[in-house]
Amino acid sequence: MILERINGPEDVKKLNQNQLIRLSEEIREFLIEKISVTGGHLASNLGVVELTIAMYRAFNFPEDKVIWDVGHQSYTHKILSGRKSDFDNLRQYGGMSGFPKRSESRFDAFDTGHSSTSISAGLGIAQARDLQKEQYKVISVIGDGALTGGMAYEALNNAGRMKTNFIIVLNDNNMSISENVGGISTYLSSIRADEGYNLLKKNVSQSLSAIPVLGDSMVHALLRTKNSIKQLFVPGMLFENMGITYLGPVDGHDVKRLEHIFREAQKIDHSVLIHVMTKKGKGYAPAEKNPAAFHGVGPFEIETGLPKAPKKYPSYTDVFSEEICRMAEKDRKIVAITAAMPDGTGLSEFAKRFPKRFFDVGIAEQHAVTSAAGMASVGLKPVVCVYSSFLQRGFDQIVHDVCLQNLPVVFCLDRAGLVGADGETHQGIFDLSYLSLIPHMTVMAPKNLWELRSMLHFAMELGRPVAVRYPRGEAYRGLEEYHQPVEYGRAEMLIEESETALCAVGSMVSCAEHIREKLKAKGHPCTLVNGRFVKPIDTDMIDRLAKNHRTIVTLEENVLRGGFGERVTDYAHKHHPEIKVINIALPDDYVEHGNVSVLRSMLGIDSDSILERINREVYGADYSSEKGNE
Amino acid sequence: MILERINGPEDVKKLNQNQLIRLSEEIREFLIEKISVTGGHLASNLGVVELTIAMYRAFNFPEDKVIWDVGHQSYTHKILSGRKSDFDNLRQYGGMSGFPKRSESRFDAFDTGHSSTSISAGLGIAQARDLQKEQYKVISVIGDGALTGGMAYEALNNAGRMKTNFIIVLNDNNMSISENVGGISTYLSSIRADEGYNLLKKNVSQSLSAIPVLGDSMVHALLRTKNSIKQLFVPGMLFENMGITYLGPVDGHDVKRLEHIFREAQKIDHSVLIHVMTKKGKGYAPAEKNPAAFHGVGPFEIETGLPKAPKKYPSYTDVFSEEICRMAEKDRKIVAITAAMPDGTGLSEFAKRFPKRFFDVGIAEQHAVTSAAGMASVGLKPVVCVYSSFLQRGFDQIVHDVCLQNLPVVFCLDRAGLVGADGETHQGIFDLSYLSLIPHMTVMAPKNLWELRSMLHFAMELGRPVAVRYPRGEAYRGLEEYHQPVEYGRAEMLIEESETALCAVGSMVSCAEHIREKLKAKGHPCTLVNGRFVKPIDTDMIDRLAKNHRTIVTLEENVLRGGFGERVTDYAHKHHPEIKVINIALPDDYVEHGNVSVLRSMLGIDSDSILERINREVYGADYSSEKGNE
Repeated sequence: MILERINGPEDVKKLNQNQLIRLSEEIREFLIEKISVTGGHLASNLGVVELTIAMYRAFNFPEDKVIWDVGHQSYTHKILSGRKSDFDNLRQYGGMSGFPKRSESRFDAFDTGHSSTSISAGLGIAQARDLQKEQYKVISVIGDGALTGGMAYEALNNAGRMKTNFIIVLNDNNMSISENVGGISTYLSSIRADEGYNLLKKNVSQSLSAIPVLGDSMVHALLRTKNSIKQLFVPGMLFENMGITYLGPVDGHDVKRLEHIFREAQKIDHSVLIHVMTKKGKGYAPAEKNPAAFHGVGPFEIETGLPKAPKKYPSYTDVFSEEICRMAEKDRKIVAITAAMPDGTGLSEFAKRFPKRFFDVGIAEQHAVTSAAGMASVGLKPVVCVYSSFLQRGFDQIVHDVCLQNLPVVFCLDRAGLVGADGETHQGIFDLSYLSLIPHMTVMAPKNLWELRSMLHFAMELGRPVAVRYPRGEAYRGLEEYHQPVEYGRAEMLIEESETALCAVGSMVSCAEHIREKLKAKGHPCTLVNGRFVKPIDTDMIDRLAKNHRTIVTLEENVLRGGFGERVTDYAHKHHPEIKVINIALPDDYVEHGNVSVLRSMLGIDSDSILERINREVYGADYSSEKGNE
Repeated sequence: MILERINGPEDVKKLNQNQLIRLSEEIREFLIEKISVTGGHLASNLGVVELTIAMYRAFNFPEDKVIWDVGHQSYTHKILSGRKSDFDNLRQYGGMSGFPKRSESRFDAFDTGHSSTSISAGLGIAQARDLQKEQYKVISVIGDGALTGGMAYEALNNAGRMKTNFIIVLNDNNMSISENVGGISTYLSSIRADEGYNLLKKNVSQSLSAIPVLGDSMVHALLRTKNSIKQLFVPGMLFENMGITYLGPVDGHDVKRLEHIFREAQKIDHSVLIHVMTKKGKGYAPAEKNPAAFHGVGPFEIETGLPKAPKKYPSYTDVFSEEICRMAEKDRKIVAITAAMPDGTGLSEFAKRFPKRFFDVGIAEQHAVTSAAGMASVGLKPVVCVYSSFLQRGFDQIVHDVCLQNLPVVFCLDRAGLVGADGETHQGIFDLSYLSLIPHMTVMAPKNLWELRSMLHFAMELGRPVAVRYPRGEAYRGLEEYHQPVEYGRAEMLIEESETALCAVGSMVSCAEHIREKLKAKGHPCTLVNGRFVKPIDTDMIDRLAKNHRTIVTLEENVLRGGFGERVTDYAHKHHPEIKVINIALPDDYVEHGNVSVLRSMLGIDSDSILERINREVYGADYSSEKGNE
């Protein structure tokens, strides 16, 4: 085993070409074996094994700095920088992160997680290096998918002005998480396939034939140069036009060639982009065959590639997927928009059944939101499906393009609340706050799978901006018997008693239900309210509760600041100051990776912790010795 | 006068070529005359007179839809669509907006204000048109400056896939609000100057000579095609590469040619970009000479171009400008970053004195924030200077790239609070909320010009993410005698009395001072506190106030939700439920254009309105008949 001897960059540099090939093989085996146990990102990591090895030979890490865009492809980097023994605890609470983290290793130059940030971060570092008169190299590794994000382009535009070395490695696997989209994708494919010339020729003749009338000399003049395009195709011209030297394309699985080009690139005294072609899932047949399915996986059987624990019950995503198709069948005005996440958001079926009404815009949340606003402005009913933490990137567009004009765009925020193993960058714990502060916005969260259906129908008919947020994973199937119609701004009274009222939103309703039962068992009557609306909150419900309750406990899977609980407290203080309000919410902090139930407990939002707090703060009791299991 | 006869598109279509030339002249005179009285955007509007006239001839508005990027260049459009009589009330409260507004006219297809949204909105509308089987044309008019914004690129990438007509008009005046930046700018200039071939040849030979070692055949092979670039230059290849047909460049002041190319463009069955070259400030010498100064202006003397009411006292921007230079002189680690606003944010002087430490990234707030994070990660002290409402576009980057890693980036938010005449899209009324919800962030606002200086020093030494927000216009010069050192999370006790405490932040401190004097005169003792920190709030101060006050009044120029007041209420309710809290803040709504003092009064945050409310809610009195003048 060569891998056994690899504890840092110097060990990689000692190897000869044959050993490097063996190392690549051993790393692939290691990754497949480890990820099959812990789960994690597989396909993307299998794709960059040689790329990473070559970088470790051509550069001097950690003096030189590599920024991994998104960062889920950094596993080989983690292995080669001395962290291979941490893979047993990959993405577990307290274990190694699945993303680069400066706090984890000095080899991790910059934390990533969301897409398209690496060129900006890398350029900032390179500019700082020059000002501080230092000499190290800076390399941003970005995928072709991430290149569809606008901020990558903002950074490229600025990189074109660099007067010193800055290296961008374009890891082109011809797809982002799902199939890649747009003009850039087509452009890169044309280079990749080495069919550039032919493709272009075809495009040009199409363009020309697309102009029905060419009888005019001016238009002829304007188009005159087009004919010469046939002789003109150069790979990377798009980047060259921006002032960035283009090198490539290069085979991303040939360590020797890669190492060489990385060394050459260091000699260029401005920004240079190296176009590397890799294969996602490389070396593991099931992943090569279906890279999208092996993007992020749970534990799986190596032989078959099948999950070890197949899904038994539908997730909220499944419920959404089914319902949106059902609705779209009846209402032709419904269109769906996603930012490179048709699978993750449950829109694949919609895309199959209503291809003309489906828009995957690439990793481009800003465009997703504003193009939806455009569609809504002329009478369509767009549904924008984006993960909670990714929609942060469309914040200004929601404020400025959707809500200002009060346009009926429905936002479906999947992965809201704690998401678990992906950690800080992916937790959807700010959405209730950043959406609720926007005028004209309505914000809802369903208590169970049936309520998600009702809320989707309600949202689609509201005729104004509205967001529905729901968590990752299995949809709650309890409380089926409670299904009052969804009414604007109205909470749902589930069980009315007195003394203490639990007002929970979304995922916390099931938790509150559990707590109520335990309190009841101890002889404490307790009301259970499903908040439903975070904006606007149901103040009538608070007035009603004020009549015969001394305490209101709010529960939400979101930071306290700007969320549901703070709003309830504000209203209570002004109208019912005698009522005690306890807010169960997430602390003002980022939440690291780990199993969701472990995280809940650590953060004090699991039912035992909450119960303990209620007993302490409301009943002055100490039930801690009677802690049950959830 | 031809202009007198123009009341709609059909009137423009009747004119012959000579009349069109005269109409352009008359519109320019009209614009200069009107804007010299009301103030407004001048240079950009003078640049697009012929462009707009030609569009009105080639298209059928309002059936066809034009989306004006940013929108401040839509004055000729407003004139030609029958709104010329509204120019006397331009940007006044209740008068015509300086931006397109759907609520104002059916000719305004989509509201704009922030940069780079028009292609997304236009593409969404065009896609909706096709689905609804309608036939109208959609035109997005975007400047070369706006093209530096990432979302424009996201939209272009998607526009490359259109299979029906969609028209993008690139209004290239070779500058954004200030000088344009980046690779794209250079690229467009090269086309514009018709020196493309020469420029490129030079670049290519530079690129080639920049590679010191070319002894290797592989690198030779990779670079082989470069030599052929010399024969390859085609205008618009960058857009063609993305799948968008490029037409141009065209003289933007030749109505006949423009009209013709607009008609031809309609025949293309996919996305087409028309590159139009215009001159900002065209036809008015002072504006041609200094277009940046005539971007947005107050009332001015037509003869000289000089402002009618020259500035007497320094603005917060001036104070910032001076102090940041002073600090940068002593601390070489300080760098400054702006998104195309060196003048507006007061960084022009810094740019002049420290050119290597100054980064104007174009209209690219996302890149501004993340590149600053990169710089901070390796030891620099970056100051990001962006208007409050524009920083909304960097929200995810602040959450994900700056605060997650707790990096010492200082955000200076100019134009925070009400900005007045620019209206809804430019009011900086959400920043306290969207920044305060982010973990690790510190949020401050100074009471007067001296405190801004102190806060800048404090922020620069904090070593963590921090935002300082201050309003547009004259810096407050009162309360000079109060200058306790700025301490983390500490409010400043200005005048300590009892009964009622006014806790104000930023611009509202001076207002609170005024209110306190009036209450005092009526025999009501009243404490005055300068909140200073919105995050974290000073809970010790609230505890101190709780001892001998019955009421706390919070005052802020921000929406209530998620802001300062809600946080104070939350703390008070949990620790001092007996204290009444009154929150003076902006309503949960957008705020239209108008004079700031008129807006304050309309929104109930002027001192008279607040006094009335305090008298009513605290003292049960009615002082409304004694309303004074502010």
